[in-house]
Amino acid sequence: MRDVAVIGIGMTKWGELWNKSLRDIYVETALMAMDDAGVDRIDSMYVGSMSPGVFVGQEHIASLLADYLGQAPIPSTRVETACASGGLALRLGLMEVASGMRDVVLVSGVEKMTDSTGPEATFALGTAADQEYEGYHGITFPGLYALIARAHMEAYGTTREQLAMVSVKNHRNGAKNPLAQYPFEISVAAVLQSVMIADPLRILDCSPITDGAAAAVICPVEQARKLNHPVVRITGTGHATDSISLCDRKDITWLESTYQAGRQAYAMADKKPGDIDFYEVHDCFTIAEICVMEALGIVEKGRGGEAVEHGLTALEGKIPVNPSGGLKSKGHPVGATGIAQVVEVVKQLRGEAGDRQIPNARVAMTQNMGGSGGSTVTHIFERD
Amino acid sequence: MRDVAVIGIGMTKWGELWNKSLRDIYVETALMAMDDAGVDRIDSMYVGSMSPGVFVGQEHIASLLADYLGQAPIPSTRVETACASGGLALRLGLMEVASGMRDVVLVSGVEKMTDSTGPEATFALGTAADQEYEGYHGITFPGLYALIARAHMEAYGTTREQLAMVSVKNHRNGAKNPLAQYPFEISVAAVLQSVMIADPLRILDCSPITDGAAAAVICPVEQARKLNHPVVRITGTGHATDSISLCDRKDITWLESTYQAGRQAYAMADKKPGDIDFYEVHDCFTIAEICVMEALGIVEKGRGGEAVEHGLTALEGKIPVNPSGGLKSKGHPVGATGIAQVVEVVKQLRGEAGDRQIPNARVAMTQNMGGSGGSTVTHIFERD
Repeated sequence: MRDVAVIGIGMTKWGELWNKSLRDIYVETALMAMDDAGVDRIDSMYVGSMSPGVFVGQEHIASLLADYLGQAPIPSTRVETACASGGLALRLGLMEVASGMRDVVLVSGVEKMTDSTGPEATFALGTAADQEYEGYHGITFPGLYALIARAHMEAYGTTREQLAMVSVKNHRNGAKNPLAQYPFEISVAAVLQSVMIADPLRILDCSPITDGAAAAVICPVEQARKLNHPVVRITGTGHATDSISLCDRKDITWLESTYQAGRQAYAMADKKPGDIDFYEVHDCFTIAEICVMEALGIVEKGRGGEAVEHGLTALEGKIPVNPSGGLKSKGHPVGATGIAQVVEVVKQLRGEAGDRQIPNARVAMTQNMGGSGGSTVTHIFERD
Repeated sequence: MRDVAVIGIGMTKWGELWNKSLRDIYVETALMAMDDAGVDRIDSMYVGSMSPGVFVGQEHIASLLADYLGQAPIPSTRVETACASGGLALRLGLMEVASGMRDVVLVSGVEKMTDSTGPEATFALGTAADQEYEGYHGITFPGLYALIARAHMEAYGTTREQLAMVSVKNHRNGAKNPLAQYPFEISVAAVLQSVMIADPLRILDCSPITDGAAAAVICPVEQARKLNHPVVRITGTGHATDSISLCDRKDITWLESTYQAGRQAYAMADKKPGDIDFYEVHDCFTIAEICVMEALGIVEKGRGGEAVEHGLTALEGKIPVNPSGGLKSKGHPVGATGIAQVVEVVKQLRGEAGDRQIPNARVAMTQNMGGSGGSTVTHIFERD
């Protein structure tokens, strides 16, 4: 297996992009990544997208986007595992380059969520939950994560304020990210006074509905060393599954797929949590970031809320989590999120993260999660 | 790269399976493939499915099905490229085993099309066409293939009767396949008198709406040699894209993605059309089989209709095409079709195809196509 590096990244400002279609936002972003990599052709591409069929009535986007990018007839593959589709696109591209099958591969994600002419976004997102055991009973994702939050509060004494602090921290970071959908700071009081969505979660505990894309170009490390950028290698990958319904889990506060995928990536990269300089993780709801910190071993089980309160994961903390602003502030176009995490990691490891730069960052981990934890994809990156 | 073989196949009777859900038909079929392979665990799995989100409101099926199959937390990936999703699942599984990353991988496809509580199947299938340039104007797939048929008739003198003969041949084969949705023979007259769908295509030119799944287990050839079945190696793979809209093509009678994917697989397996004992191809409409024969080089451009009329591709012909009955008679649960082609190929190469057995078959090719040819995945198989 060959070592693989990220040589180009692309991402534009996320938000409610009503004047652009799915193919527009995708091509703009993919071309940025190709420009950044200095390539005008690619050997193969992967597109992570959760549900373009339900959101905008368009499947078959792997071919559509290859064509609009001027790259047909290259092989182009769409992959899906709900909100972890972007991370999965990277994993499969990595496999293709590592195996020696192809050299220059575009890995990408896209979702157009705000201008559906069909069902509402809440319905579309609900297709990531178990339709027969969860959706049928009317529960949506804020409700599922509210159950997790309530269970975590009861089991470990996690407080309502600690949940709010996740959001406050991520907005503080996102305020320094010009590409974020909501680049402004908020206060704990603002979170606690915001409209109730599913008790105990309020709207400022929830990541937003977003249009956006993100892209990266990868190739063998040997080729990457000939280019201008600092070399960012991908040294670990993990992918694991769990029941997609909460009712089938022994303990709904524990994200087994994140634990398993984390373990795989740590082992492959020969790293442990203490070796990681910063994380980009899947904070679709505030409680998710707390559970992810525990499943990845950043803190002990049950101690996530407390760690956030004490500033462990702040930008200036010992282990920054979500310097980009996370899903909460940056936005969450579901299929694109996993690749946007890569974009942030590469900016940080190259030293190009501007006001939110983490000094001397050399090792980073991404964690991208589907549904309420039914799937997780993780990666570890290292600067040469 | 390691050589890879198919060691297990699974498929149940296809049709309108109203008493079973997507997860039921999937697990039944996947367990058959695992039983046939003699394994009770797998290292990884790929699921091809075109649009479970639109058909049954359920995305995130890779994790759902891994869990229902008792295999979580293994990595499980859904791939999509419209009706070629099944073939793509095989291609990615093949890449994973060939690269040495995993040994025993389940490749599979599933679609539950007949009991949608949401939009009708015609809308769901239409998401494989270009929504902005085709769907917006009201055209559906029978209409798109009718345009291709009319152009082929005008350019090459292909007759209405020759189109019908594709359907008659495939039903004649399918009548010998107990798993086919419509296992009965039909006549040219019956096709010509059947209800008009999109001139010149009538309903007996069109593959049906089907519920079904298909599965196969693959592993390195060295391991396969220790098992009881004759060894069926996968010696070639191809995957190519084209514009998904017909209006962007120079010649709508020519399937460029099929030509390109065919070329790749032939080159990898070091084979040419004359070396292939039989084909399983994507006859979603009668005209499709004719265009595919031409793009794969089975006949010269424009000679497909004539070749069918002269019996070249009949079960007893020189180059049998679709011994299984094809999509037309066997059914077309879109994401499962590419894997069902593998099931037929393995049965034939093992000599287990019953009344439709092709004598001394040793080399076979599958061609699985998305939309009106926006994507194609091909594979070549050889018996040791």
